[in-house]
Amino acid sequence: MSKYVYLFKDGDQSMRNLLGGKGANLAEMSRLGLPVPQGFTVTTEACNAYYDAGKTISQDIIDQIFAALTATEKESGKKFGDANEPFLVSVRSGSRASMPGMMDTILNLGLNNISVEGLAKKTNNPRFAYDSYRRFIQMFSDVVMDIPKSNYEHLLEKMKEAKGVEADTDLDANDLKELVSQFLTKYEQLKGQPFPQDPKEHLIESITAVFRSWDNPRANTYRRLHQIPYNWGTAVNVQGMVFGNMGETSGTGVAFSRNPSTGEKELYGEYLFNAQGEDVVAGIRTPKPIVELATDNPAVYNEFVRLVDILEAHYKDMQDMEFTIEQGKLYFLQTRNGKRTSQAALQIAIDLVNEGVLTKEQALLKVEPNQLDTLLHPQFDAEDLANAEVLTTGLNASPGAATGRVAFDADRAREMVAETKQPVILVRVETSPEDIEGMIVASGILTARGGMTSHAAVVARGMGKCCVSGASQLRIDEHNKTFTVNGQTFKEGDWISLDGSTGKVYNKEVKTVDATVSGNFGVIMGWADEIRKLDVRANADNPHDATVAYDFGAQGIGLCRTEHMFFEESRIAAMREMIVAPNVEAREKALAKLLPMQREDFKGLYKAMKGYAVTIRYLDPPLHEFLPTQKDDIEALAKEMNMSFKDLQQVIDSLHETNPMLGHRGVRLSVTYPEIARMQTQAVIEAAIEVTKEGLTVIPEIMIPLVGEVRELKAIKKVVVETADAIIKTSGIDLKYLVGTMIEIPRAALLADEIAKEAEFFSFGTNDLTQMTFGFSRDDAATFLGDYYEQKIFEEDPFQHIDQRGVGKLMKMASTLGKEARPNLKLGICGEHGGDPSSVEFCHNIGLSYVSCSPFRVPIARLAAAHAQIKNPR
Amino acid sequence: MSKYVYLFKDGDQSMRNLLGGKGANLAEMSRLGLPVPQGFTVTTEACNAYYDAGKTISQDIIDQIFAALTATEKESGKKFGDANEPFLVSVRSGSRASMPGMMDTILNLGLNNISVEGLAKKTNNPRFAYDSYRRFIQMFSDVVMDIPKSNYEHLLEKMKEAKGVEADTDLDANDLKELVSQFLTKYEQLKGQPFPQDPKEHLIESITAVFRSWDNPRANTYRRLHQIPYNWGTAVNVQGMVFGNMGETSGTGVAFSRNPSTGEKELYGEYLFNAQGEDVVAGIRTPKPIVELATDNPAVYNEFVRLVDILEAHYKDMQDMEFTIEQGKLYFLQTRNGKRTSQAALQIAIDLVNEGVLTKEQALLKVEPNQLDTLLHPQFDAEDLANAEVLTTGLNASPGAATGRVAFDADRAREMVAETKQPVILVRVETSPEDIEGMIVASGILTARGGMTSHAAVVARGMGKCCVSGASQLRIDEHNKTFTVNGQTFKEGDWISLDGSTGKVYNKEVKTVDATVSGNFGVIMGWADEIRKLDVRANADNPHDATVAYDFGAQGIGLCRTEHMFFEESRIAAMREMIVAPNVEAREKALAKLLPMQREDFKGLYKAMKGYAVTIRYLDPPLHEFLPTQKDDIEALAKEMNMSFKDLQQVIDSLHETNPMLGHRGVRLSVTYPEIARMQTQAVIEAAIEVTKEGLTVIPEIMIPLVGEVRELKAIKKVVVETADAIIKTSGIDLKYLVGTMIEIPRAALLADEIAKEAEFFSFGTNDLTQMTFGFSRDDAATFLGDYYEQKIFEEDPFQHIDQRGVGKLMKMASTLGKEARPNLKLGICGEHGGDPSSVEFCHNIGLSYVSCSPFRVPIARLAAAHAQIKNPR
Repeated sequence: MSKYVYLFKDGDQSMRNLLGGKGANLAEMSRLGLPVPQGFTVTTEACNAYYDAGKTISQDIIDQIFAALTATEKESGKKFGDANEPFLVSVRSGSRASMPGMMDTILNLGLNNISVEGLAKKTNNPRFAYDSYRRFIQMFSDVVMDIPKSNYEHLLEKMKEAKGVEADTDLDANDLKELVSQFLTKYEQLKGQPFPQDPKEHLIESITAVFRSWDNPRANTYRRLHQIPYNWGTAVNVQGMVFGNMGETSGTGVAFSRNPSTGEKELYGEYLFNAQGEDVVAGIRTPKPIVELATDNPAVYNEFVRLVDILEAHYKDMQDMEFTIEQGKLYFLQTRNGKRTSQAALQIAIDLVNEGVLTKEQALLKVEPNQLDTLLHPQFDAEDLANAEVLTTGLNASPGAATGRVAFDADRAREMVAETKQPVILVRVETSPEDIEGMIVASGILTARGGMTSHAAVVARGMGKCCVSGASQLRIDEHNKTFTVNGQTFKEGDWISLDGSTGKVYNKEVKTVDATVSGNFGVIMGWADEIRKLDVRANADNPHDATVAYDFGAQGIGLCRTEHMFFEESRIAAMREMIVAPNVEAREKALAKLLPMQREDFKGLYKAMKGYAVTIRYLDPPLHEFLPTQKDDIEALAKEMNMSFKDLQQVIDSLHETNPMLGHRGVRLSVTYPEIARMQTQAVIEAAIEVTKEGLTVIPEIMIPLVGEVRELKAIKKVVVETADAIIKTSGIDLKYLVGTMIEIPRAALLADEIAKEAEFFSFGTNDLTQMTFGFSRDDAATFLGDYYEQKIFEEDPFQHIDQRGVGKLMKMASTLGKEARPNLKLGICGEHGGDPSSVEFCHNIGLSYVSCSPFRVPIARLAAAHAQIKNPR
Repeated sequence: MSKYVYLFKDGDQSMRNLLGGKGANLAEMSRLGLPVPQGFTVTTEACNAYYDAGKTISQDIIDQIFAALTATEKESGKKFGDANEPFLVSVRSGSRASMPGMMDTILNLGLNNISVEGLAKKTNNPRFAYDSYRRFIQMFSDVVMDIPKSNYEHLLEKMKEAKGVEADTDLDANDLKELVSQFLTKYEQLKGQPFPQDPKEHLIESITAVFRSWDNPRANTYRRLHQIPYNWGTAVNVQGMVFGNMGETSGTGVAFSRNPSTGEKELYGEYLFNAQGEDVVAGIRTPKPIVELATDNPAVYNEFVRLVDILEAHYKDMQDMEFTIEQGKLYFLQTRNGKRTSQAALQIAIDLVNEGVLTKEQALLKVEPNQLDTLLHPQFDAEDLANAEVLTTGLNASPGAATGRVAFDADRAREMVAETKQPVILVRVETSPEDIEGMIVASGILTARGGMTSHAAVVARGMGKCCVSGASQLRIDEHNKTFTVNGQTFKEGDWISLDGSTGKVYNKEVKTVDATVSGNFGVIMGWADEIRKLDVRANADNPHDATVAYDFGAQGIGLCRTEHMFFEESRIAAMREMIVAPNVEAREKALAKLLPMQREDFKGLYKAMKGYAVTIRYLDPPLHEFLPTQKDDIEALAKEMNMSFKDLQQVIDSLHETNPMLGHRGVRLSVTYPEIARMQTQAVIEAAIEVTKEGLTVIPEIMIPLVGEVRELKAIKKVVVETADAIIKTSGIDLKYLVGTMIEIPRAALLADEIAKEAEFFSFGTNDLTQMTFGFSRDDAATFLGDYYEQKIFEEDPFQHIDQRGVGKLMKMASTLGKEARPNLKLGICGEHGGDPSSVEFCHNIGLSYVSCSPFRVPIARLAAAHAQIKNPR
């Protein structure tokens, strides 16, 4: 028989997979002797068993829960559901990875119509007792019974109105008792039966409700975003209640052992007197900074500081803690490694090394590569910013600069981005987990209420997204979709800008400038570079992008898509002339016009990369992409080309394909029109020679796309080598170049040993390789992928993270076969996966030489490569 | 140093790969003591060396040729190029596989302006000498110098005209001498220099010309058709000339040791007196039957019969021989296993077993599986065909003979058949799925556009229906319902006939005769069935096809494409209603209409298969295929559906996909709309139960298409099993069924071990698997595949023969992984490759349980499976 329930005192921090993060840390704190209310954890395996049994909890698990409850009661000296002195517990989720706010919590279990009286008497605090009970009814109804909270909140508001008070705390015991009665009536109205009265039933129902919340839409979205597998499941923690709402000597709060925004070594946090945790998170009352506790209650404050130091030293990382003071006694309800901004992550990592706590390797692992994203994105242009007016200043909840159009709810935010392709700022009174999808698409988040640890702040920091929270001067009219601040009114679609590092909100669109790698960022990147074995290149098609990439530390260009150069206004005419050419001569004439342009492009790239390798992919897309589709445009082009409309239409029709993805593109174009490969080779080599004459080193790597058969490569390589060698010989310059191929067709991976005989390098084109291995196109998959995620058929987007089991198997096979045939084969990747940390780690593990990604992801890939080497040295 | 040249006396029949078929047999005949003019063979390796060196023959090879020439001269007692008694030779191609007429031959080498005089004197036959020389000039100019023969033929005709004679043989020595002079002048005019005079130069030039002819377009086409690899190369045979044109005691001919048309055991052939071989082949003079030789020259005839018997006994097969009689002496110039008609192939195989010459296994290998094709389709009555005129020739897309009245659209085709009860030929520019009903009722299909893998061709082959596609000379006027070809116009209702085996279109009704598996055919099939280990199933979508398949020996249905049932007139309305349904309820309502129809379909299939397994593939194509594309049709449908045009257009637009191949189809439809899988399961199972109640055995195999991830299969299998088991339980019948999947997505093959945990069988869908493994779609590949074949990047059509290196590697991997996870996993194939003999052999070799092919290819697959077992017993 499996053990599904562990008392806190029976666990420790190593049991995170079984007990979840919260459960393991509660056990660990308990083990360390910290003041933790006793309780137990129902394991993640119990959650999986629940789902495997068709969402049913087994009698075995129920029995183990009640056994653990009995053991916990015994320690507390009280009894669960007792009429006179009831033992109250909380039920909280806790999965292996932190998923803040995604799942459900229920507090104050153990109360019913009878025990609430006992609690009132025993504590001599009826106000507290009824407040606790009405909270329980509300949470249980919401989480377990699917009755929206608003039903009860409405009654609460009416009561406050009737009593002429503003704060919940201004209601007295009788008001709350009356409210409890109203809540119970409301429940019966809505459900057709009275509110259940058996606390043991409450407990089991609540635990299964938390299990169910593992599968709610926002949890599913969050997991996909953070690559958390569904089959991890969540644990459930049942813990004795301690009360921050037992009067003015009670309180509750959250704190960080260092500043999560800057990384500064200072105790940081907020607390509220006479409140339960939900009040702090919900942002209904504005909490006090933690330092004020030193004045309010020096003894508790000093004890708190002492215990925080113990925790940080124990976990060797910045801690994020929840605590409650019950009538002057301090309890810890949670500790975990705190989420932090990118700036803070760098500062903390460097400080922990300097303090001698961590090695460089350990410290690097504390910085999430994806987090660097915020540091890499544009900051406000100082000059343009001078013209903007500061509307108000909120809390600097998550750093970065964001500019965009105002949207007032998540749905509209998504629609506006889809429609306008312009950035959006999500403006909310406060955010809740239901807003998660809107937060994902928004460039920045602005809230009127809520502190540094409010939902908006925590989630935005997790996403590395700019957020200003608690901008309390904002008056938001959700109904009319406007907000007013300092006399100015903004409506949906108006532009505003946010500075998440200062909390400032600006009244207009503000230009942004590029980020640079310096300071702490530079230090961390330096450490990463010392450690990593995997080179990082960039995908860049023009000198500007190449320069950005170089400045971000790219060690070469892994992919230059030459077709991007042809789409430019000044060139597309020659390109179109090439496409409609009736014969080789006419085609060569048009290509001759493109040659000098390409040559200049390549010179620019070579110069920008200052001697690093530049990989140039030959023309790839189907030719129809260069031609117009609308009648007017076709007419205009026909005129320009001196052709009849009919003839041009015929060319366009002849290029039409049923499945263009699987059509005449890539190397297939060069097989049909070798003159294109000849022109491109001429441009690549002549540019290299000219730059070499200017004293620079150049190593062009010529990359043939979409190869599926070695003879394709052989045929085009012959054209390339003949052309190149003739030019090099004439020039008298000793120029080296490589000819390689992309591995992006399954067959190329399967026959990589044959292909490696001709290819001097492989570059995995994982975008196409993913499409063909899965047999679906990115353009069309959207129609059904939603259903796939919903049914957990896929948990991750294979275009974002390499599908290691399937596509990765082909990559491994190709790497192995390729190296067997050519031991010094250079292996790289240039799909979009090259900038994704989990994919970078995979590339390191299968022995690639480099990854290539967009310039703005180069530092992320550098750090991810260092992580990979630390985890799996090679 | 490699040995590139072998004297005939140094070789034997085992050296076919090196010496080619002709060379090895000349050596063998020489070894057996038959009268063979001496000579030598330049090997296939020399041919490959020639190409590897950029079409240059090395000095080493030249030296070996001249050394062999010297040895040959020595035996003949004459000298090559000698002025007085020149030794003359022929230069002939000879590859490993027989490629009759595809490559070049040059006769009478050794003659020039001087030696022709010597020959005239020595033979005392100036007519013969000049005739030989003018033939040489003509052939050498044509084959080596690229001067079309017509230049010379024109002069020959003029000469005959001037002399007032009809036959070449009527020209005398002086005429021919004059003609030689005219030929030489003509040559100089065309080439700007005199005709070369060095016989050694002629020899080397001729040998390299034969090497070059390995790469001529007709040889390339022939190889692709017969799967002969380019890298086999051709050998070249240089052989002393013997002359059938030395007067009336000389002659030349070809003969078969049995009748190649019927297989009858009788000497069969033709000969001509005073002629060279080319005269027999060219048909300028009408040759005499070989039996007349018995009267004309009994001694030679008896010797000939004796030697033919020796050869047939030696090779244990019907021989095809070339011979020459030079002044009363018989020489053999070639022997090979003779090509024969299908009927003859069967007769000879059976006779050779009965004669005790061959075992059944050996005899079966003498029958080419593909040859059976002609026996399986209706044939034209030969006598009636003689009265018909060939209008045009298109592609021989699907074999058989069809005659009928012209119909220009599917609806009219159905009406005409219903009204007239007479056969119809559907004539379309190209067909689309909407034409399916018309294709079903038509006796044959003729299209103006589309290749061997166009919709018309694929569907017609699947139906075993005659089809000529891509008849590009057809001008179809759909509006006026006429077509014009070569100046003749046909209107609706006119009679035409098609020969799908040759691509010919005839101008009138031609009588046909039906095929049956009986007599010799039945005997051979019986032997094949005794031997083979691989089961053969058929792809059939309706009871008629299933019955045909059963009669042809199919052991089950390997693929029933359920969507074909939905295209029928009476059903497409319900199908469309299902597609445009705004919600699940509406969709289920429409599905309920389809249910009884599907159930009847399946009952019909089960009954037709009499207890064999029936594999039913669930809905596969993208839904837009069921909707109209033209405005008029959309308007009509909107009306029918009681929808606005705009709403329907919106549905159609929403279903549009960029790459429908890689879109929302296959299992993806069932993931989005599980109600479809539920309805199909209900139909499959209810039909099985009804048929079981009638006393038949049924084993439905439910096949989920396009699976790429085990969780897809798991999700749909759950729907299937829940639905099926509930129905079975209610029925009280003990019904077994299997749930399996197609392996047609590369990822499915890569993760076959995971998928096999859920799948009870795999069926390789090699059409899609080929498309995705190669990364090109059949619909679009035509634009570039021509260039690929021309440049030898591909030598075979991977949609016709399994690409064993690439796609086959995935198949092997999937088979191995699948069996590891589920040892009793049933493995099959249902792509079009299932009826291709080389693919059947591959399927046998990798251990599949069955192949499934179109009904008309079932006997071919049965024989191919027997061949596979004989070659590689398992």
